Amino acid sequence: MTAASLDVVAVGNAIVDIIAAADDALIDAEGLTKGGMQLVDAARADVLYGKMGTAHEISGGSAANTIAGMAALGRKCGFIGQVADDQFGKVFSHDIRAIGVDFTTPMRGEEPPTAQCLIFVTPDGQRTMNTFLGASQYLPARALDKVMIERAAVLYLEGYLWDPEEPRAAMREAIAIAKNAGRKVAFTLSDNFVISRHGDDFRALLNAGDIDILFANEGEICTLMDTEDFEAAVAAAAPLAQTLVVTRSEKGAIAIQNGVRAEVAAEPVDKVVDTTGAGDLFAAGFLAGQAEGRSLADSLIMGSVCAAEIISHYGPRPEADLKALVAARLG
Amino acid sequence: MTAASLDVVAVGNAIVDIIAAADDALIDAEGLTKGGMQLVDAARADVLYGKMGTAHEISGGSAANTIAGMAALGRKCGFIGQVADDQFGKVFSHDIRAIGVDFTTPMRGEEPPTAQCLIFVTPDGQRTMNTFLGASQYLPARALDKVMIERAAVLYLEGYLWDPEEPRAAMREAIAIAKNAGRKVAFTLSDNFVISRHGDDFRALLNAGDIDILFANEGEICTLMDTEDFEAAVAAAAPLAQTLVVTRSEKGAIAIQNGVRAEVAAEPVDKVVDTTGAGDLFAAGFLAGQAEGRSLADSLIMGSVCAAEIISHYGPRPEADLKALVAARLG
Repeated sequence: MTAASLDVVAVGNAIVDIIAAADDALIDAEGLTKGGMQLVDAARADVLYGKMGTAHEISGGSAANTIAGMAALGRKCGFIGQVADDQFGKVFSHDIRAIGVDFTTPMRGEEPPTAQCLIFVTPDGQRTMNTFLGASQYLPARALDKVMIERAAVLYLEGYLWDPEEPRAAMREAIAIAKNAGRKVAFTLSDNFVISRHGDDFRALLNAGDIDILFANEGEICTLMDTEDFEAAVAAAAPLAQTLVVTRSEKGAIAIQNGVRAEVAAEPVDKVVDTTGAGDLFAAGFLAGQAEGRSLADSLIMGSVCAAEIISHYGPRPEADLKALVAARLG
Repeated sequence: MTAASLDVVAVGNAIVDIIAAADDALIDAEGLTKGGMQLVDAARADVLYGKMGTAHEISGGSAANTIAGMAALGRKCGFIGQVADDQFGKVFSHDIRAIGVDFTTPMRGEEPPTAQCLIFVTPDGQRTMNTFLGASQYLPARALDKVMIERAAVLYLEGYLWDPEEPRAAMREAIAIAKNAGRKVAFTLSDNFVISRHGDDFRALLNAGDIDILFANEGEICTLMDTEDFEAAVAAAAPLAQTLVVTRSEKGAIAIQNGVRAEVAAEPVDKVVDTTGAGDLFAAGFLAGQAEGRSLADSLIMGSVCAAEIISHYGPRPEADLKALVAARLG
């Protein structure tokens, strides 16, 4: 096994977020599940866009946000994801390359267009996401950059991308490539509904020892372990991965690594503007902390610092200097 | 002359802004004129985009920003501008309609694409704009919504759009339609370089009595009147229009209307984040104040309140509740 020249390479959805403020009445009227992510087709996306106020467009995608955060923290990263040959595809490609991330996946044709996520942000800062997967759902296994995966210490996968068939097959192959090269695999569960659709797959991966680092939030780990008792879920999940990281919003986060448990409080935030990307940036901070050789607790704190930054403004990509924020908090 | 059912209809560039933070070294290295707007072709836009960091996309366009601000203040407005049939065209169309503005100009084909403005925002909050006009420069006179222009109390035109030939002809025709319907014409000079290219045209319009309300900043009015003496420029320009409005950044603003002068200080701003759209939103507040029947001084204050809001965040479209801000300031 050669030394890794990249810290993390992620396989994820390549999405442009379309973000707008919305009131709770709209969420109700459209029958949306507040705080969740639902997949929508082009027609439904058009309807929802029509109901949306003036929006901002910002590159998104769960794993891509994590990679962007890690790059902002100075780590060397790669990203694999499928965009179309259109304006949003150029926007996504530009934004991820502009922060120094290796992104070599070839564009697909013009149709379907690059994935878009319509995000309604309510006054409480909660985000409700409606994703039109477009080109992203056609990431083929042949588009995987095998050498890039072999070069990275950690392969990071997002559960959201488990829904469509082609990327699911691609991620299975990516796991095989990483494992074969002696690399670690990190996986984020993404969303309760994703687990309800694919929990059997995720549990099988864990039982097979294919996932070294598992990221989840409180609800997700309970859903995965089929219990409403948080501590029971954690106790059941921890032995299945070398490292288990569970975020609990304002209650902070815990990690269990090889049987050792660390727990941190949430970092203070003046005002929660938009929670989009909170979990993604938590993962970024945690993985960067681990790559820097920090303790489990300090890695959690790095995750909390990054999550606190991202929820203090609109959009899932860092705006403040994350390195400086971490240095101010941890030295 | 029938009563106007719209307050303002604008003819302007239909642009999506691509906004990123940048340091002064980049502005220098690329030979950009800080604080200015320069037109770029597709190849140069690609080069500049490649040098840009992670960006946000937000609908822009000078007159369109003004109209968006007026709509946010509760005025009834229309907009005329040319987008292409592409993703940015959909973004622009959505954002302006989402705030209740009448926008009926048909999309053009796919090429050239919708206009884009690459905006580098330096740490001092100054914005340096590089505009690829794309479809916007092909607004034909036949795309003018004559009935919409006749319905509006004020026709508002942006100097930026005087550069390309087709929209220039369209704006001349729009002036004729408005004048014929007994409506007022407002014109914003937009930029010093625009005046250096088209000052003769602008002076001719003023001398012909075609412009009732003229918007300029300090530098622009001096350039137009060919003097470095601000008061001399104002004295020379004031008789040429019923209303002259001149913004002076942190020095406030003045207006002269039928020989009566009003002057206001700038509204306080905690931190200037991005000056993009400051003049556009000043015009929005001023025109809305006039439409509400407010005094000249109070209309200037409304302009200042709107400008202060827009420079306190990234992007040229209002994020706070402008009506509430005005109510808090003026009642």
